Amino acid sequence: MFAPVYLDHNATTPLDPAVREAMLPWFGERFGNASSRHEYGRAARKAIDEARAQVAAAVGAHPTEVLFTSGGSEANNLFIKGAAALMKPGRIAVSAIEHPCVREPARQLVRQGWQFDEIAVDGAGRIDPAAFEACLAGKPKLVSVMLANNETGVIQDVAAHAKAVRAAGGWMHCDAVQALGKVKVDFRALGVQGLTLSAHKIYGPLGAGALVIDKRVELAPLVAGGGQERNLRSGTENVMAIVGFGKACELAAAAVETRAVQMAVLQQRLEAGLASMGAQIFSADAQRLPNTTFFAIGGVDGETLVGKLDRAGFAVASGSACSSANPEPSHTLMAMGVEAGLARSAVRVSFGAGSTGRDVDDFLTALGEMLAGLRTLAAMAV
Amino acid sequence: MFAPVYLDHNATTPLDPAVREAMLPWFGERFGNASSRHEYGRAARKAIDEARAQVAAAVGAHPTEVLFTSGGSEANNLFIKGAAALMKPGRIAVSAIEHPCVREPARQLVRQGWQFDEIAVDGAGRIDPAAFEACLAGKPKLVSVMLANNETGVIQDVAAHAKAVRAAGGWMHCDAVQALGKVKVDFRALGVQGLTLSAHKIYGPLGAGALVIDKRVELAPLVAGGGQERNLRSGTENVMAIVGFGKACELAAAAVETRAVQMAVLQQRLEAGLASMGAQIFSADAQRLPNTTFFAIGGVDGETLVGKLDRAGFAVASGSACSSANPEPSHTLMAMGVEAGLARSAVRVSFGAGSTGRDVDDFLTALGEMLAGLRTLAAMAV
Ligand SMILES: Cc1ncc(COP(=O)(O)O)c(C=O)c1O
Ligand SMILES: Cc1ncc(COP(=O)(O)O)c(C=O)c1O
Repeated sequence: MFAPVYLDHNATTPLDPAVREAMLPWFGERFGNASSRHEYGRAARKAIDEARAQVAAAVGAHPTEVLFTSGGSEANNLFIKGAAALMKPGRIAVSAIEHPCVREPARQLVRQGWQFDEIAVDGAGRIDPAAFEACLAGKPKLVSVMLANNETGVIQDVAAHAKAVRAAGGWMHCDAVQALGKVKVDFRALGVQGLTLSAHKIYGPLGAGALVIDKRVELAPLVAGGGQERNLRSGTENVMAIVGFGKACELAAAAVETRAVQMAVLQQRLEAGLASMGAQIFSADAQRLPNTTFFAIGGVDGETLVGKLDRAGFAVASGSACSSANPEPSHTLMAMGVEAGLARSAVRVSFGAGSTGRDVDDFLTALGEMLAGLRTLAAMAV
Repeated sequence: MFAPVYLDHNATTPLDPAVREAMLPWFGERFGNASSRHEYGRAARKAIDEARAQVAAAVGAHPTEVLFTSGGSEANNLFIKGAAALMKPGRIAVSAIEHPCVREPARQLVRQGWQFDEIAVDGAGRIDPAAFEACLAGKPKLVSVMLANNETGVIQDVAAHAKAVRAAGGWMHCDAVQALGKVKVDFRALGVQGLTLSAHKIYGPLGAGALVIDKRVELAPLVAGGGQERNLRSGTENVMAIVGFGKACELAAAAVETRAVQMAVLQQRLEAGLASMGAQIFSADAQRLPNTTFFAIGGVDGETLVGKLDRAGFAVASGSACSSANPEPSHTLMAMGVEAGLARSAVRVSFGAGSTGRDVDDFLTALGEMLAGLRTLAAMAV
């Protein structure tokens, strides 16, 4: 099988062999509905409890604060819609660079009489302090700011923002889907009331995510029914995926520092190479994830480049994974004030635990050849 | 490993080896975000498209009518909340024996100004025709009636009810989670606008379900965001689970008749044995699933019996799986007018594709011994 070099770990990650190993007993041999009151059911319940403890430990939370969902999108929607449903309409504010699965549910609250604010970011994709202060003056009931952006990798000072939001009387939510496993994530240190995690971005399986939640926040469920997950997320629990998520969290917490150093080395090597080709690296001056490089080469269409790289055996993204079926220029770059033409040139490389220096060099070589080819064509067309 | 005889297939089913086989490539070796525009992403997208065609074919629908969800509970909530969100409040009617993941979202619409009606059933658990007519006279906008009940196995005449609902100007939804794979399920023949399916009840994996939906029904998503599943269910698709669901649907459709005959033989054998022990079989006179027997032995507590059977190596249920952590007597039996004391004696046996005549005989022997023991104790206590 032809296996292109995978440089798109912010979209999804391969399963860690140890995660696979942990899931394996639940892949055929063992099974059971965790609500059943017999041997099969009890075993499933026990496996879920263990995974809940692993997830909690990875982010410094208590197991009872962890609610399992089908993924990050559901967890984000659950916090935003679920908390809003039990409040009188007020203001909700989210950063201008949130993932659509935060922005959309927040925006849709307008139908229920909420006021929706977007908090501006600066040219490097960091929350603008003045905009944040102005937002707080409006006494928002709910605020959501992501820990790390999926496109630029920019890390926000969520702990400071959360403190200010609490002081202003609101609840703070944080989407940590991209941060988990790449930088340290600590529920208490962040001081947020809700924290979203997803398994498939940390070498765990698709089909599991979590909302870590402060128990003072009351939520209405999105999925009501059998009463699973403290009546906040009904539906027979996906034992195998939850077990894999637990293991992936344990591994992520243990490896985060080593991996961060490894990836930062690759990132530097890549960015030095890109700079020498005249690429512009977005958010170069901001604190960023060690695995993410979002860049543009002026005059070269991002989609076209991603297609060429794909054919040459390199899997990279032109925008955020979830919206890459969407030809609009990146919402994040627009919010940063990047000119639409340049935004359309954007390409994202995101390294993973298995990425190597060789991958970087091969990628740079292939990219260099493509650019030379494109320039020759452009010169001929003149 | 000690493997009790599993007689609780309405709670969940073991994975079919052929389903496992189909999922295996996605369990480690292959991976990808189906929204990614590179080789990995395209392969994931293709696998999902194939599964969608398999699910559609199993219920006689068009692939574009199939929306993947994380399971049956989510699909039921999506139809009910999603359709209601885009309508002016009106009446919603559901049968009095729906699973909580239909009843709860419907009941919660009351907060948004809807009127919630429950349609009564007769003593055998069949929709009461007079109650149904009375309900239609109120011009409900949404009606939901399950095809087969998870506890009694009673099958409703959903096609006839759907016709009447359409004639009265409403949309009809049907929860076919328990029917699929046990009796024929045909989306067009049923004439419903929404049909709920779940993979883990048909020897497929946990983590996948579907809402089959008439395109005239407009829905608001529960999970908004990246725009997956025609913008009706955002979140990175769970490729492995969806692939397994597709395969399970293909197998279910091919095997439904053979399995139904096999299971009916076991059911008869079981029920003859139970009758000889003085058990009362609920819904004995109604058309039922061939795999489900819900019975009570007067004076013997159901929970206690399930516990004893568990220790003796037989996994059965005392009530519906999803609510069996809940000590309330079965909602279904209450709706059928069964006296609470007898309802607390209820035990459910549900056969699966792997169940054998030997399982039935061993179960009856064990049960007989337990009852003899309980009677001796009772006699001594007098
Ligand atoms: C920042 C961020 N939040 C949330 C999500 C959604 O997570 P999931 O795919 O688990 O629904 C993603 C995935 O693309 C993401 O990058
Ligand atoms: C009739 C019925 N509907 C819906 C469900 C929920 O399905 P899932 O477990 O896939 O969420 C069940 C499962 O117990 C059921 O029996």
